[in-house]
Amino acid sequence: MEAGSAGPENASLGGEVVGRINQLAAISETSQDLTRTFLTREHRAAAELILTWMRSAGMAAHLDAIGNVCGRHEGDRPNLPCLMLGSHYDTVRDAGKWDGPLGLITAISCVGDLARRGRRLPFAIEVTGFADEEGIRFASTLLGSRAVAGTFEESVVGTKDRAGIPMREALVEFGLDPDHIGAAARTRRELHAYIELHIEQGPVLEAQNLPVGVVTAIAGATRLVARLTGMAGHAGTVPMRLRQDALAGGAECIGAIEESCRTDDSGLVGTVGYIHALPGAANVIPGQVSFTIDVRAPTDAHRKRAVADIVRQIENIAKRRELSLQLDVTHENRTVPCAPWLKQQVAAAISGEGFPVFELPSGAGHDGMAMIDIADVGMVFVRCRGGISHHPDEHVELADVDAGARVLLRLIENFRPRDEARR
Amino acid sequence: MEAGSAGPENASLGGEVVGRINQLAAISETSQDLTRTFLTREHRAAAELILTWMRSAGMAAHLDAIGNVCGRHEGDRPNLPCLMLGSHYDTVRDAGKWDGPLGLITAISCVGDLARRGRRLPFAIEVTGFADEEGIRFASTLLGSRAVAGTFEESVVGTKDRAGIPMREALVEFGLDPDHIGAAARTRRELHAYIELHIEQGPVLEAQNLPVGVVTAIAGATRLVARLTGMAGHAGTVPMRLRQDALAGGAECIGAIEESCRTDDSGLVGTVGYIHALPGAANVIPGQVSFTIDVRAPTDAHRKRAVADIVRQIENIAKRRELSLQLDVTHENRTVPCAPWLKQQVAAAISGEGFPVFELPSGAGHDGMAMIDIADVGMVFVRCRGGISHHPDEHVELADVDAGARVLLRLIENFRPRDEARR
Repeated sequence: MEAGSAGPENASLGGEVVGRINQLAAISETSQDLTRTFLTREHRAAAELILTWMRSAGMAAHLDAIGNVCGRHEGDRPNLPCLMLGSHYDTVRDAGKWDGPLGLITAISCVGDLARRGRRLPFAIEVTGFADEEGIRFASTLLGSRAVAGTFEESVVGTKDRAGIPMREALVEFGLDPDHIGAAARTRRELHAYIELHIEQGPVLEAQNLPVGVVTAIAGATRLVARLTGMAGHAGTVPMRLRQDALAGGAECIGAIEESCRTDDSGLVGTVGYIHALPGAANVIPGQVSFTIDVRAPTDAHRKRAVADIVRQIENIAKRRELSLQLDVTHENRTVPCAPWLKQQVAAAISGEGFPVFELPSGAGHDGMAMIDIADVGMVFVRCRGGISHHPDEHVELADVDAGARVLLRLIENFRPRDEARR
Repeated sequence: MEAGSAGPENASLGGEVVGRINQLAAISETSQDLTRTFLTREHRAAAELILTWMRSAGMAAHLDAIGNVCGRHEGDRPNLPCLMLGSHYDTVRDAGKWDGPLGLITAISCVGDLARRGRRLPFAIEVTGFADEEGIRFASTLLGSRAVAGTFEESVVGTKDRAGIPMREALVEFGLDPDHIGAAARTRRELHAYIELHIEQGPVLEAQNLPVGVVTAIAGATRLVARLTGMAGHAGTVPMRLRQDALAGGAECIGAIEESCRTDDSGLVGTVGYIHALPGAANVIPGQVSFTIDVRAPTDAHRKRAVADIVRQIENIAKRRELSLQLDVTHENRTVPCAPWLKQQVAAAISGEGFPVFELPSGAGHDGMAMIDIADVGMVFVRCRGGISHHPDEHVELADVDAGARVLLRLIENFRPRDEARR
């Protein structure tokens, strides 16, 4: 049995969390699977349910101007700056039930535990259920946390969903005022820190046989689209040495990207997730191939070096094969490092619960990417089965839910704001 | 100037051929491009035009039971076995105007030249314009030449086109009797040989700076579909060493196929023309990839060895990467070797016209693939610009058209049936 793994007698917090995860997962736009996107009726119903949980945990709770669910547990005096906890309550399509809700519901249950014990701390605790992190409906991510961080771009309300409904209209329908989203913004002075618990969405903790981990950073990502153009031709009539086969060139690039990342030990990952070869017939040499490249690393400098190296290799492959190359960066997210003083406190809480301390970067994006603009960010990862996420098979064992809850509770109770932590 | 290239004063046959190529290309189902598929109204109009050319070349001409245009120039006695010349008059969609018509029209013009000179040979000459070689409309190729070879499968008349029209109905509409296609069949005793002139559809003659070439064989083809299944995952959260990336595996296979064929000097070609990765999102590691493999070689034994080698390599790649593999042969065509005695006569005609003799295989399929069942097959290739075919840019220079016509005419006039050729 691994160190500190929870027996059933310690699973009280975890049990409550799992019960609520299942309740929330029942609220879906579709009956077959779990889909709950921003500003839909089901999204609103989920918000109402979360508000009731917040209130039953003794919090003052309300919906903010973008639809975030906000609960506040006062400190030992009123109006103290808060430790903000949270995660998101929207989902991808055909989602798992843990991505987002686990962190949000665990935080509420921790506050409920404090409230039951009448525990007041020298800081307030706020729990925020962000309304949109996945960005599924309006193809723009982190809308909830951006509104809180004051970086929400007003122009986004003009975006339409697949059905042609503008976000502006959906906000009104939800009961919000699209012209006053700015009211959701918070300031740095109001927050000591932002701490999020989340499923890992990867297989590293499972491979390490650990229930929880300290997140070092939310890895930045660079996404590129490459297009190689050669010469289409008849699969039977063009000898190998006279070909300018765009797909063969693309395949060599994919190999080079994989090799570059494989031979790197620092957490660099590179993925070609999409490829399209034209004309795409079995008996025609592809004249053109397009593919995406997604590169992530725990630091910006590291990622930028890796991207430059990959770009150079692709350019060389294209040149040698006499293929023309178009290579565009379509997306770039900076790395959000977790604050060292928060990593220390996360590590202390993990250790305090009897688990080995293990650090890992987050390859997936999280609300901390927006919250970094108004607060230092810390994160706790919880193991999920097989590293599977964004899929109905997403699963967290009860013992791990409970381990995460106990770590978070200990973290809250032992939390010392940065200035005090420095002393 | 290359040996034997035709000056304008010698271009009389070529000029007639090009004029007719352009006339025939004006008959298209679509106004924007050239598309003339089996049994359409335009296909019928094209047949009528070809019949008039045959008759003006002194031939007895008729449509046979599958819609082939058949002309006969008697020999120095009636009812002699024939040297059959021909090619097809259907096209792919958005076609070039030379693929098919060049061989058919050149043969008619050669017979016209013989007729004008009152030349009768000790064998008949037949010119056949095959009604369907490309197999575009009913997804079944070589329908015209199979009917002549007696290998037409009756069940094919039940096939429907994209619009849902059964071939049976289209045959009736064209004026044919779907229950008597067997009447188109010829016998081995009626034919001395089948000889086809065709554009190369590849870049080899151009690279050799030669207008014409002797075809050694119509390369057989094996087509496979490979499916590799790994594990989809988040592009950010799964470390490289824990991935089972199906597309990365597919890319390695493509590299191995290319390398196998590149390092082979005998005319082996391998092509991956189609690829599809699932789920196909930039931020998801592909869990599955499917791709086609097309392998062709000048002999069946050679192709089979190459396919076995490629299959073994793919199996090894799949095993090493822990990907599951499904590999199916979807299509297999035997190699049709050109008869040595016909290659000799083609070579003699080329040489007689002052061109260097150069041999090359045909990587593309031709009506000879069906005709081999009732006759020895010979082919003459004519250079086409850039090797481009099945595309509006398909082009043959007038000088090369003329070179091809002069070679074919010389070949006809000097033709000796196999038994005599052996003596």
